[in-house]
Amino acid sequence: MTKIAIVGYGNIGRAVEQAVNAAGDLELAGIYHHNDNLDDIKADVAVLCTPTREVPAFAEKLLARGICTVDSFDIHTQIAGLRARLMPIARNNNAVSIIAAGWDPGSDSVVRALLQAIAPNGITYTNFGPGRSMGHTVAAKAVPGVKDALSMTIPLGTSIHRRMVYVELEPGADFAAVEKAILSDDYFAHDETHVVAVPAIDTLNNVAHGVNLVRLGVSGTTHNQRFEFNMEINNPALTGQVLASCARAAARLQKEQRPGAYTLIEVAPIYLLPGDPEQLIRSLV
Amino acid sequence: MTKIAIVGYGNIGRAVEQAVNAAGDLELAGIYHHNDNLDDIKADVAVLCTPTREVPAFAEKLLARGICTVDSFDIHTQIAGLRARLMPIARNNNAVSIIAAGWDPGSDSVVRALLQAIAPNGITYTNFGPGRSMGHTVAAKAVPGVKDALSMTIPLGTSIHRRMVYVELEPGADFAAVEKAILSDDYFAHDETHVVAVPAIDTLNNVAHGVNLVRLGVSGTTHNQRFEFNMEINNPALTGQVLASCARAAARLQKEQRPGAYTLIEVAPIYLLPGDPEQLIRSLV
Repeated sequence: MTKIAIVGYGNIGRAVEQAVNAAGDLELAGIYHHNDNLDDIKADVAVLCTPTREVPAFAEKLLARGICTVDSFDIHTQIAGLRARLMPIARNNNAVSIIAAGWDPGSDSVVRALLQAIAPNGITYTNFGPGRSMGHTVAAKAVPGVKDALSMTIPLGTSIHRRMVYVELEPGADFAAVEKAILSDDYFAHDETHVVAVPAIDTLNNVAHGVNLVRLGVSGTTHNQRFEFNMEINNPALTGQVLASCARAAARLQKEQRPGAYTLIEVAPIYLLPGDPEQLIRSLV
Repeated sequence: MTKIAIVGYGNIGRAVEQAVNAAGDLELAGIYHHNDNLDDIKADVAVLCTPTREVPAFAEKLLARGICTVDSFDIHTQIAGLRARLMPIARNNNAVSIIAAGWDPGSDSVVRALLQAIAPNGITYTNFGPGRSMGHTVAAKAVPGVKDALSMTIPLGTSIHRRMVYVELEPGADFAAVEKAILSDDYFAHDETHVVAVPAIDTLNNVAHGVNLVRLGVSGTTHNQRFEFNMEINNPALTGQVLASCARAAARLQKEQRPGAYTLIEVAPIYLLPGDPEQLIRSLV
């Protein structure tokens, strides 16, 4: 049994707990709030479910103690940097860190890598949604006069998205001013954005999300190779499951004495799965 | 540059040649017909494009000489056995063999493994076609009175397929007898099969193929997670490209001193791609 600690207990932490309890080979070693003393953690792998910006410091501390870590760090432009930062700490302490292990970045990254390998020239379009964007929702909530907000990402194809921003106003707030502030925010200025005032955000909330990932490419010298990956999913449940499966993979890589920091495209898919490799090959290959 | 030998020069061998020539990091070291003397081969990796049944013996010989091999061995029930057979030879000679590396088995296997990892309970349906089935075409051609044949696989969903068998008859052959023989052949007896007489098979040939792979599953304790992978492709071009990309991966695994026999689900996707890992992570993760 691989012993799993969960650090951070919001939507994602709860989803990891469910995934760990559902897995026959993973055992919950403890749940730690992100302001707990992490020196108390005793586990093979710590799954970091804290806000993304807290991930690097937590990962460093735990790896330095030889505890493997898994996270769903999601700032795409900083993933390579996080990997470089954690790599020496993981290697020096014979630990494994699997970073950016949600669904995007994460399982979608594996699909993108696979499609680029089998059709090396071409364009991949990743179309998100419909679903709630955390980053855009936080940006809308920060606008003065906004009591609560929800920014939905609507896919328009070819990686172009519409933002539907629902706002619950503070009493007496001026909708026109709120709308203007949102439309001029850098988070929204580059996409088609619509701001809609609603009486209450709570009644709109829904953790559904989706992806439509399309590649038109060339295999060898043959054009018009067409690939498409779609999913319609419960967002925290999927993220929690990817994290739990990656915790298993981290323990395996550590056992094979391959310490280091990895993104999901650097991990053999079979490591994500429980059970005997020969049996997995018989059923999946 | 990784030096690639192509063994067998039919549709697949030609497609591998195109994919190797299109790759900046792979170099064609030679093309060998499957009855050539393989002792002459000088290469880092030999891509085996022979008939499937000849793959195991060729792979054994080349691995014993320390030459890595890649193949698209496609008898699903014998893949685990082939891996077990090649494993000690590869390990003893510091070579790598990547087996069953086409699109199914192959890249589809990676998608199936990934989807099982992110939604562990549920059912995956792999629906093939429309496209030509090599095995069924060969079986239909073997029926007395058949001059040429083409068996098309038509997907009906939930892994159920229809077989459309087009036959060009020998002069004087009895269509009813041919139809009866095909329908009672074990290859066709379990599927809905239609036999159609046509004046010429040549005018029907087309190397297009496709897949619709669907998983409905459970992540953690959350049901109704929906995933779908589709492709519409030129069959030999895709197979050739997968083989060429796996030749790159085999050379990398050898360089990292990880000899052995691998299926594609045991290979980290990043190994299939040329270029600097950090740059790949920046663009794909």
